[in-house]
Amino acid sequence: MSLLVVGSMAFDAIETPFGKSDKIVGGAATYIAWCASNFTSVNQISVVGGDFPQEELDALTARNVSLEGVQIKKDEKSFFWAGRYHLDMNTRDTLATELNVLGSFEPVVPESYQNCEFLMLGNLAPAVQLSVIEQLKQKPKLIVMDTMNFWMNVAMEDLKKVLQKVDVLLVNDSEARELSGDYSLVRAAKSIMAMGPKYLIIKKGEHGALLFYDDKVFFAPALPLEEVFDPTGAGDTFAGGFIGHLAKTKDISFENMKTAIIVGSAMASFCVEKFGTERLREINKNDIDERLQEFVQLVNFDIDLVG
Amino acid sequence: MSLLVVGSMAFDAIETPFGKSDKIVGGAATYIAWCASNFTSVNQISVVGGDFPQEELDALTARNVSLEGVQIKKDEKSFFWAGRYHLDMNTRDTLATELNVLGSFEPVVPESYQNCEFLMLGNLAPAVQLSVIEQLKQKPKLIVMDTMNFWMNVAMEDLKKVLQKVDVLLVNDSEARELSGDYSLVRAAKSIMAMGPKYLIIKKGEHGALLFYDDKVFFAPALPLEEVFDPTGAGDTFAGGFIGHLAKTKDISFENMKTAIIVGSAMASFCVEKFGTERLREINKNDIDERLQEFVQLVNFDIDLVG
Repeated sequence: MSLLVVGSMAFDAIETPFGKSDKIVGGAATYIAWCASNFTSVNQISVVGGDFPQEELDALTARNVSLEGVQIKKDEKSFFWAGRYHLDMNTRDTLATELNVLGSFEPVVPESYQNCEFLMLGNLAPAVQLSVIEQLKQKPKLIVMDTMNFWMNVAMEDLKKVLQKVDVLLVNDSEARELSGDYSLVRAAKSIMAMGPKYLIIKKGEHGALLFYDDKVFFAPALPLEEVFDPTGAGDTFAGGFIGHLAKTKDISFENMKTAIIVGSAMASFCVEKFGTERLREINKNDIDERLQEFVQLVNFDIDLVG
Repeated sequence: MSLLVVGSMAFDAIETPFGKSDKIVGGAATYIAWCASNFTSVNQISVVGGDFPQEELDALTARNVSLEGVQIKKDEKSFFWAGRYHLDMNTRDTLATELNVLGSFEPVVPESYQNCEFLMLGNLAPAVQLSVIEQLKQKPKLIVMDTMNFWMNVAMEDLKKVLQKVDVLLVNDSEARELSGDYSLVRAAKSIMAMGPKYLIIKKGEHGALLFYDDKVFFAPALPLEEVFDPTGAGDTFAGGFIGHLAKTKDISFENMKTAIIVGSAMASFCVEKFGTERLREINKNDIDERLQEFVQLVNFDIDLVG
């Protein structure tokens, strides 16, 4: 098995200008698994409470997502987040955060998960991410890490330790500015790559994503959509598409990372079309191929036309 | 002569987080002419006061910019704008606007400017833009129009008349939202194209630009720069590169418009590197070709790597 994913599996309650969800299944590792399982099998590490629906676990198992590494704490409750998006869909207020099982999460890497080639560290406490890296007997071919500004405020020292051990970091633009202390994203990227990761992806939501490596930069747009229905999980889905494509092709060249970012962008463009993971559950390979072709049309131009 | 440009030639005083300019030469048509003259000769229509520097006029003439259509009102003063940019460089406060000669501007199209194939209407009162269109005995092959939110507030009826006569409209994202009354840029684009222009370009500053046509969309990124020194004139320079490339190649297919937008983006990326038109005065064909190659590197990916 080539892809190991660590992250939260949880409940979300979401309000957007278009409507309001019930308490639905969410969590970084849930989105990553639904997305990456289109490309490769997944070994999942997470923790849920006794309230987490068995049907969700069964649905993931049916998609070749191994749950051997998912701890189920029968007498506790799953992590819960509630949030409300503003009209621009780029900003949101957190209405509730209940850590529950996540507060005391100690990940355990099952023996059968050893020798993974690709490791995706979903957004979690840096200490938890570090614990997973340290339990692996052999360094994976590629370690990709997601994080968020929250950890920069409460666990910066731990975060810096993890940064030294990962190959690719994913952050959004405001997080890149906070982590580096620099407003210019180009300078911010240089500072952050000096902290450890050789590759840096800066996500800009509806404005696309930038991949930095050495002195190179690649830009992937977001697909212009009539409606962004619910942005929850778009970043996790992007990460799932990125690492899913790399794990499938086993090619970690910069050229293939460009393609992987386009795959991530395409998958994220599905995610935001409906509440939660709903859209990700519907799509098939044809849908994905068609969406990828839309990205080709979106950015391809003929420089030879410069007369 | 194939390209006719109408717009302001003026003075600007600019404050950015990086510094403060003296009263320097600016104006939409000035930027457009400096930029487009890299690709084609230009017939300029504008108005200046007796205070406008003769050296500036001479420098433009030396670049094959005809000034026969530029009225010089010896006893009056040129249009003057002063503004201060915020740290994000996307928002700015207007500190002073002195219309001066622009307040009573009645453009006159010289006989030698008739039969132009390409018409670039720089940001100006819609009535002035309309007057130029109506003075042309033969409809140009392509009419491109820039405008701004100010005219939506004070001259919407005139603006709508011009919209019915142009082929391509250039606006920024907030202007597209204001003009259409729709937050979604994809839906806004449909509404605006129903007002007249077959092609719509929505500029998003550091986040690039979108070209809409029929049910097609193309996205051009902005070059990620360490420093945006002064954004003044970037939109005009973008327009100048876009129409300059089209006028040079005389090809108004959607495919070539994509390339034209990349040329516009490349030219705008030079503009912001120094105050005012300074950087545009320095660059040569080699610089432009190199910058265009950077755009190819920035967005090109190999979809065949999707295994």
